Amino acid sequence: MIKVENAQNIILENIETLEAEKVDLLKALSKVLAEDIHSDINIPPFDNSAMDGFALKSSDTKGASQQNPIILKIIENLPAGKTPKNTIHKGEATRIMTGAPMPLGGDGVIMVEYTESTNNEVKIYKAVSSGKNIRLAGEDVKKKELVLKKGSLITPAKIGMLASVGKEMVKVIRTPKIAILTTGDELVELGEKVTPGKIRNSNTYTLISQITKLGAIPVNIGIACDNIEEIRNKIRSGIQYDMLITSGGISVGDYDLIQDILKEAGLNLKFWKVRVKPGKPILFGLLNNKPVFSLPGYPVSSMIAFELFVRPAILKMLGRKDIFRKTILATLTNSIDKKTDRRQCLMGILKEVKGGYEVSSTLPQEAGMLKSMTLANCLILAPQECAHIHHGTLVKVILLNDKE
Amino acid sequence: MIKVENAQNIILENIETLEAEKVDLLKALSKVLAEDIHSDINIPPFDNSAMDGFALKSSDTKGASQQNPIILKIIENLPAGKTPKNTIHKGEATRIMTGAPMPLGGDGVIMVEYTESTNNEVKIYKAVSSGKNIRLAGEDVKKKELVLKKGSLITPAKIGMLASVGKEMVKVIRTPKIAILTTGDELVELGEKVTPGKIRNSNTYTLISQITKLGAIPVNIGIACDNIEEIRNKIRSGIQYDMLITSGGISVGDYDLIQDILKEAGLNLKFWKVRVKPGKPILFGLLNNKPVFSLPGYPVSSMIAFELFVRPAILKMLGRKDIFRKTILATLTNSIDKKTDRRQCLMGILKEVKGGYEVSSTLPQEAGMLKSMTLANCLILAPQECAHIHHGTLVKVILLNDKE
Repeated sequence: MIKVENAQNIILENIETLEAEKVDLLKALSKVLAEDIHSDINIPPFDNSAMDGFALKSSDTKGASQQNPIILKIIENLPAGKTPKNTIHKGEATRIMTGAPMPLGGDGVIMVEYTESTNNEVKIYKAVSSGKNIRLAGEDVKKKELVLKKGSLITPAKIGMLASVGKEMVKVIRTPKIAILTTGDELVELGEKVTPGKIRNSNTYTLISQITKLGAIPVNIGIACDNIEEIRNKIRSGIQYDMLITSGGISVGDYDLIQDILKEAGLNLKFWKVRVKPGKPILFGLLNNKPVFSLPGYPVSSMIAFELFVRPAILKMLGRKDIFRKTILATLTNSIDKKTDRRQCLMGILKEVKGGYEVSSTLPQEAGMLKSMTLANCLILAPQECAHIHHGTLVKVILLNDKE
Repeated sequence: MIKVENAQNIILENIETLEAEKVDLLKALSKVLAEDIHSDINIPPFDNSAMDGFALKSSDTKGASQQNPIILKIIENLPAGKTPKNTIHKGEATRIMTGAPMPLGGDGVIMVEYTESTNNEVKIYKAVSSGKNIRLAGEDVKKKELVLKKGSLITPAKIGMLASVGKEMVKVIRTPKIAILTTGDELVELGEKVTPGKIRNSNTYTLISQITKLGAIPVNIGIACDNIEEIRNKIRSGIQYDMLITSGGISVGDYDLIQDILKEAGLNLKFWKVRVKPGKPILFGLLNNKPVFSLPGYPVSSMIAFELFVRPAILKMLGRKDIFRKTILATLTNSIDKKTDRRQCLMGILKEVKGGYEVSSTLPQEAGMLKSMTLANCLILAPQECAHIHHGTLVKVILLNDKE
């Protein structure tokens, strides 16, 4: 058995970020950019008015005030999207809307609020300095400037920037397809009757949801009964995807079967069993150079093993840098007794309190208690070496159910 | 002009959570549950073994030890998914796998690790107490128990619970479709050439991304030039969706046109302009009882106005309870000078430091600076009444780009 960190390191050493692909701009949201982006234009492309008002020569407005307005002749009306036809000479002004290009001869814009105008003339009630209310060409972005870096996560603002520089197609890291193979003679599907000795399949749905939330694509290979030929075929079809996860009924016995079949198929086993509770009986290896995880069948064990081991693997494939969740510190409101042979992840309820966080682990903690997992909002990470963690101790916590 | 909080209150007062609809289980992820869920079965449905080992009568194991094992006769092999055929009598044991139903007559399970067995016999090296390693029927969930409450956000664990209670279809709050109408003669689409006086449309793509991240469905109505008939037709088609957002080129002048057309169409105007920079020129009203927002055209103003006003509206429609983002406190590392006529939202860069957070607002803050928005990871909320905020002050910050 190896430690959690060792297992995580082995996983990350054996997993590569996927290759890039070109996608439509809007498909790039929340993916990782796989190219540096340089602007093909100045943004804004031309000097333009930052306000609705009048473009003019600032020198014409010297001394203008409420009591002593200066009168200029309006030579043109310029909405956004139109180009100016006339040059502004001394004593002249162009009515201009926000975003419209600055006419030649003008070097400042006065806001409409400080003017009064007829069709032909405008009274200017305030002096304007040169450059006032003008957005200069290239003020936001210069032509050829590096605007977005390879490797960054594409946010809504970055989608806007990609649009601004005309990228209809964007190179991003390809999204992995994750095959899920569920095993166990005891499992029945949702539509079926729960006959004696059977339980409903829930792990497949939880895993599909966990994968979906990470932005990867789950592929449900279905349930294989504990039958060698059936499992063999399903593994063969699952390993065509970018990763294969097998979820093992609720029996540790099942695993041995799966492990045997995976080995026979040529699995390069990297580890089997990790010093953590729950989630210990997890297998990781490579088959045809594709990562394979076999997860324990208890619902809580499956979720936590996914959280600790599969999630970082998928995020690395996606090219993400934020591979591990942030931990926060919270004050434990009950006491915890545990064995010292392994790390323990306890389902916790975290509350914000004045000055920090409080967390309790009073939910039933057995690996079969899916109800606790629906109520938990965090996992408490209890170190291997501690047998007893006192009420009032600061403990490390990772938030669940936050948004991937 | 009204204050930000007033505007937000008016929006929430005028927006209803959408009605419920039935969707396939996996479509329910990240939506809000619109029914109480009771379990149709006990989970687990029957007493079963929590371990791989041997089911037996605990009284038979009294005094068993490494030196003094007790030998029992194996009467049956019981994998998960099979039902026991034989009752365990004194001196007998059933080989049992995790999850398999407890045979009649057995009241405890010994882990395989504490045994040694042939086909017919098993040596027991440790005494077992009654009930040991047995998961009782209904231990996680009792039949008819309320397992999930109406109004809760559906997480992966809750999808697992819904599967466990056999819900193939789930009642959730319907997902709003949000129409986006972009206006402005100066806008060209991504594939088009940026001719003099024109700029590329970016707001539509940013808005689509912001809406997508909230889990709502954006519908792009396209660009309407500043032409009354065209805008009128597009508004008519946009208002058929659950919400209409108009995005106004970059000209304040455009708004007046949109506002006039909206009013002519019967808009019940709720407010126009809010005391906030950037994002001030925002309109909210109801048309055919559907919420309508007109957002400013500068890219930063548009994003921040969406963040402050449209986001809470969409989340309320989705039935979410976490309508406003959490604010955190961070130490300002530069100084801020502002006008006292309104709240200011500054694009900030937040860093975690020992004992808390530091934030700077040194990015260019003009409303046209989309590049700053791609670099910012938070918004600093500067109160209306402050003209100067000193370096070292604790300021309120909301995190952007975290996952919705």
